[in-house]
Amino acid sequence: MSGTRDHTWAILRRLVEASTTEVVRHLWPDGDATAPAEVDRLVERMRSGDDTLPTGLLRAASARSAGVAEQAAVDLQWAADNGWRLLTPDSPEWPGPRWDDAFAPVGDLDPDAGGAAVPGSVRGAAARPFALWARGSVELAATVERSVALVGTRTSSAYGNRTTHRIAGDLAAAGYTVISGGAVGIDTAAHRGALDASGPTVAVAASGPGEIYPRTNAALFRRIAETGLVISEYPPLTSPARYRFLTRNRLVAALGRGTVLLAAGYRSGAVNTTNWADAMLRPVMVLPGPVDSAVYVGCHQKIRDGAGTLITSAAEIRELLEPVGAVDPEGQLGLDFAPSPVQQLSRDQLTVFDACGIGSDGTGHLDQIAVDTTLPMAAVVRIVSELEVAGMVRRAGDRWIKNDR
Amino acid sequence: MSGTRDHTWAILRRLVEASTTEVVRHLWPDGDATAPAEVDRLVERMRSGDDTLPTGLLRAASARSAGVAEQAAVDLQWAADNGWRLLTPDSPEWPGPRWDDAFAPVGDLDPDAGGAAVPGSVRGAAARPFALWARGSVELAATVERSVALVGTRTSSAYGNRTTHRIAGDLAAAGYTVISGGAVGIDTAAHRGALDASGPTVAVAASGPGEIYPRTNAALFRRIAETGLVISEYPPLTSPARYRFLTRNRLVAALGRGTVLLAAGYRSGAVNTTNWADAMLRPVMVLPGPVDSAVYVGCHQKIRDGAGTLITSAAEIRELLEPVGAVDPEGQLGLDFAPSPVQQLSRDQLTVFDACGIGSDGTGHLDQIAVDTTLPMAAVVRIVSELEVAGMVRRAGDRWIKNDR
Repeated sequence: MSGTRDHTWAILRRLVEASTTEVVRHLWPDGDATAPAEVDRLVERMRSGDDTLPTGLLRAASARSAGVAEQAAVDLQWAADNGWRLLTPDSPEWPGPRWDDAFAPVGDLDPDAGGAAVPGSVRGAAARPFALWARGSVELAATVERSVALVGTRTSSAYGNRTTHRIAGDLAAAGYTVISGGAVGIDTAAHRGALDASGPTVAVAASGPGEIYPRTNAALFRRIAETGLVISEYPPLTSPARYRFLTRNRLVAALGRGTVLLAAGYRSGAVNTTNWADAMLRPVMVLPGPVDSAVYVGCHQKIRDGAGTLITSAAEIRELLEPVGAVDPEGQLGLDFAPSPVQQLSRDQLTVFDACGIGSDGTGHLDQIAVDTTLPMAAVVRIVSELEVAGMVRRAGDRWIKNDR
Repeated sequence: MSGTRDHTWAILRRLVEASTTEVVRHLWPDGDATAPAEVDRLVERMRSGDDTLPTGLLRAASARSAGVAEQAAVDLQWAADNGWRLLTPDSPEWPGPRWDDAFAPVGDLDPDAGGAAVPGSVRGAAARPFALWARGSVELAATVERSVALVGTRTSSAYGNRTTHRIAGDLAAAGYTVISGGAVGIDTAAHRGALDASGPTVAVAASGPGEIYPRTNAALFRRIAETGLVISEYPPLTSPARYRFLTRNRLVAALGRGTVLLAAGYRSGAVNTTNWADAMLRPVMVLPGPVDSAVYVGCHQKIRDGAGTLITSAAEIRELLEPVGAVDPEGQLGLDFAPSPVQQLSRDQLTVFDACGIGSDGTGHLDQIAVDTTLPMAAVVRIVSELEVAGMVRRAGDRWIKNDR
């Protein structure tokens, strides 16, 4: 029974590239995203060329129906042989409810427009996925429960890579799963940062299982699957293609509570992922960098456009994703950058402190301090005493001398 | 006559450290900031200890009256001997009207509160200056007509220095006068950037004429005075002190149409200058930098607080200071970062382009492109033709092949 359903899903996975709002509309006609009962009927109608289906579905069916049942069986066997499994809305680990605020509610899709998004519904364009191939030792829904997407350019800088690695590690240490795309550059630094901090990480591939892209990351994908997950919306051995990257990006955004852009040039695919997050009403965060680095032009523009919040640390990311008060970045800053004693002085204290003498130069007489500061003598006497208690000045006869720091 | 008035101003300059709202109230009792007629009377009342004066003025007079007339004469002679001049509201080059939107309108000061700022008037705290010592070959009012303040930490990084130098040079080339404080670090980079682009620059010193601070910048101050100005609110040979830096900062902010923060640690005096600019309702702009550099912590916090606009170039600064449309940063960006032909493709064009073949690998048949893309054959044929016209693909028999880029 499960095998039959999986076969049906695998067929649909072959018939429909990624997901579309038309598929979503037919899988969940009642608007209840948690119980897709219509997959058998949809696949049957597509394979028989039912011309009451929307054009997009008919076109896909017409182009891909030939031999699709056999191919789906091959896919399932290939997956079983190679450590992959098919995740569908039938699976206990399917993060269906988790995705309800990311993807277009079924009700937002207009049946009279062939299942297209209702105009004005920005989220209509992010079609709910219906099946994913997955490899790894953890369950998807639990793994992405507390998660953040880290994305950025493939042509990253040393600064971008080390900062991403550090932030990913800090997030992992705080119990976050790092989601990224498995590409070179920022994606790799993000996955590695999480792994090096012994945290789970999820790579959403833009190619099918077995088609490692980029090939140089084969070892990284293996390492990810050991403690986390590699997932793909495409059938086994599907080659990567540019438009698949763009479609894949919506899954990266949907799997994170928010998306962080860690490096992006003037036009970067990573910006696309943040646009998805924005459309899903999830926080978009942006790391700044050197303004004379081309790979931060996109980041700075995003901040200037008010389309993302500048962040500099994992703590600032968590601050945006967690309830108010759960994170205390001020406290953390305080540890690193405690104000000096001088910085803690009041304006009058500072004025008096500066008027105090230095060593044996003869300055710092009380009278002179009063003239220099125009403060009443009583105030000067009070304040030099405060400074003495604070260990900042000492008395030498009728002079007050700054202590060495 | 002019000598007499200058002597009176020089006396007041000795009696009152920097400026205060109490002085402003008594100099301009009618609220007309352009015609201070009351300086003689104010100085006379202070020197005679008129106890109807506000406490602050009485205190200053009491502490500093002894020998003040003689000292003021010495100051004027010292200035004449050393190339300095006294600028007052009597001077044609006094930027009085230019400062009307920077400093508290006299009407905002409350006479019943001894000339203190009316509560709620944020600008009340920035007391209008009444006299400045100046050295240089240009006139102050004309020099600061088109100007911007560049400020930042003294402990700057190589990145901060080179970026500041470049931005200052670009602003100077666009006809802007760069205002800064003559300190080491960012201030020095700003002045030098302007000078190296043959632009005028103004250094507002926190010490008096003849008391060069920092001494390592003596040559820089000389160079600034050759084509620009060095100015100070303090009498000749006044030593620098921390509270004088804070007071000086309001002049830096007031002399610029806006203030740019180019580097600042967790607690930096330069942030104080941007606070003045903000209180003066002038644009505050902030350069971002590496998040793992301590001297950008203050910059990033400023942006995160929404207290400053992120800028990355002189063009973006000018955009905020000039009428809409006067600057075209997009055009400039376009020159540096033109999108590649692939980035200009529509989604369908991109889909087809990616499905086209590579070299002699046998892929790229029209039929296969239609299957891969699920586009109607007519659309595929139209789009490959568009791509051929764009020089991105070529025909090889019944295959379409991507051209080398």
